[in-house]
Amino acid sequence: MLLRILELIGIGTFAASGALVGVTKRLDVFGVCVMGMFTALGGGVVRDLLLGVHPPTSLVNPVNLGTAFGVSFVVVFVHAVVMRLRRQILVLDALGMGLFASTGAVVALEHGAGPLAAALVGGTTAIGGGVIRDVLVNEVPLLLQREFYAVPALLAAALVGVVVHVGLSTNLALVVATTFAFVLRVVSLWRGWGLPTPRIE
Amino acid sequence: MLLRILELIGIGTFAASGALVGVTKRLDVFGVCVMGMFTALGGGVVRDLLLGVHPPTSLVNPVNLGTAFGVSFVVVFVHAVVMRLRRQILVLDALGMGLFASTGAVVALEHGAGPLAAALVGGTTAIGGGVIRDVLVNEVPLLLQREFYAVPALLAAALVGVVVHVGLSTNLALVVATTFAFVLRVVSLWRGWGLPTPRIE
Amino acid sequence: MLLRILELIGIGTFAASGALVGVTKRLDVFGVCVMGMFTALGGGVVRDLLLGVHPPTSLVNPVNLGTAFGVSFVVVFVHAVVMRLRRQILVLDALGMGLFASTGAVVALEHGAGPLAAALVGGTTAIGGGVIRDVLVNEVPLLLQREFYAVPALLAAALVGVVVHVGLSTNLALVVATTFAFVLRVVSLWRGWGLPTPRIE
Repeated sequence: MLLRILELIGIGTFAASGALVGVTKRLDVFGVCVMGMFTALGGGVVRDLLLGVHPPTSLVNPVNLGTAFGVSFVVVFVHAVVMRLRRQILVLDALGMGLFASTGAVVALEHGAGPLAAALVGGTTAIGGGVIRDVLVNEVPLLLQREFYAVPALLAAALVGVVVHVGLSTNLALVVATTFAFVLRVVSLWRGWGLPTPRIE
Repeated sequence: MLLRILELIGIGTFAASGALVGVTKRLDVFGVCVMGMFTALGGGVVRDLLLGVHPPTSLVNPVNLGTAFGVSFVVVFVHAVVMRLRRQILVLDALGMGLFASTGAVVALEHGAGPLAAALVGGTTAIGGGVIRDVLVNEVPLLLQREFYAVPALLAAALVGVVVHVGLSTNLALVVATTFAFVLRVVSLWRGWGLPTPRIE
Repeated sequence: MLLRILELIGIGTFAASGALVGVTKRLDVFGVCVMGMFTALGGGVVRDLLLGVHPPTSLVNPVNLGTAFGVSFVVVFVHAVVMRLRRQILVLDALGMGLFASTGAVVALEHGAGPLAAALVGGTTAIGGGVIRDVLVNEVPLLLQREFYAVPALLAAALVGVVVHVGLSTNLALVVATTFAFVLRVVSLWRGWGLPTPRIE
């Protein structure tokens, strides 16, 4: 139950971030909603494509769809407020990222993927929506540039494999890995961590 | 039979629109043909990926492939003429859009998708090729910006689910939904309908 | 065994080309590695998505993953040297392209695809990584513009179908088609071949 609520929070914050980018790029109301839904559900669709789940569960679950659409639609009207809450949204987004990475890895393990593939599928689930969002509006994906974002996602997804391999329950793995990714991401935002950029002489 | 001819008209107009964009972006002959084929067949490939049809039927059907390639190749030589026929092509494109949305939804229902997933898969089939076309040449997809295009596609795909749910035949659903999307799109072009863009203060 | 070594050379050169683009675009260390891995493994992932291989073999094979990551990571430190070796890399890249096209077609045939679909899947395997690389950094894919690259890939993949259809072994098909694509690409680089661009009056 808690997990389900957290998942919807994740979907909602991802939808808000996608819809905000759409507003900034002067898309129309429908374009803003599409951006929100692709960002919120894109990672899960890519995960299901990689694992062979047809049709992707995101397209089947009306609550997830409704949350993504509803949040995007609301952002159309209150985008100025949402813009001011950017810092709070970043914290929620860190939660969503950790959750998407962990659940992605769990779903992959359940579909017979090894721990290595599960880590990659989990990481892809977490970053997929953001990459789709940025590619659609012709930006180089932010998380390739300077954000300490994909590293916590990948580590969390790998952690799921480790915890399950040790013999603990998947529920515990979800909690541990999500917390780990969330804390790592929030601390990195707070301390301004980033990876270095190779120097070009 | 009529349906098959309409499908090839849809593929042909989508190929022409993709190839025209390729010519405008100064791609070479091969690039123009690739643009035409991705635009014409991309929506169907995405549909089959979502539904788990392997390999995608578009890559298997030589007539569809030949139509997409042939039209793209011809556009290389007569692009000036095609450019002048833009208005007529928009009407054919509206037909293709309606048809792709409806058949996408029917194929989804046949593969066990519920009506909600079928509507999304149908809508994705109709807009997929155009989104791929615009992403490849680094444009923000037109249909996210101001075109009243994806809304009729989604509505038509949803309509298919309704008609079939009521107990009528899929053939009837195809005709009703395609006609609906076509008329809605053509009227919106004629009246200059568009969705509003959120204001940024 | 030889084939396996050639495959890793192909993955390595594709990773190097992706990582170099990442360095040029001022991505951070992680972004550079992601670019290298997407470029090296993207074509194979797309191939497996089209054929319904879940999870994609590229995400399962630790040697392929390690090669792609290792090469990308090394490029971070020695990109200036790699940049000077560009001509030698182009030759290795031609080998990788031929190999990806041929193996893509063979895998497609083994999964029940007809020769036409196999040719398209093989061509997509060879060019997929490069297209993903360019789309991620907002460039119109190079190979749509002026490179004589996708044509040899498609021809090689089609050649696999012909050789197998004639009744010869897939191993022979791999050698013949890879050699053909490699020679055609290297000669085209050497002679400066390219396809014409449609004139806009």
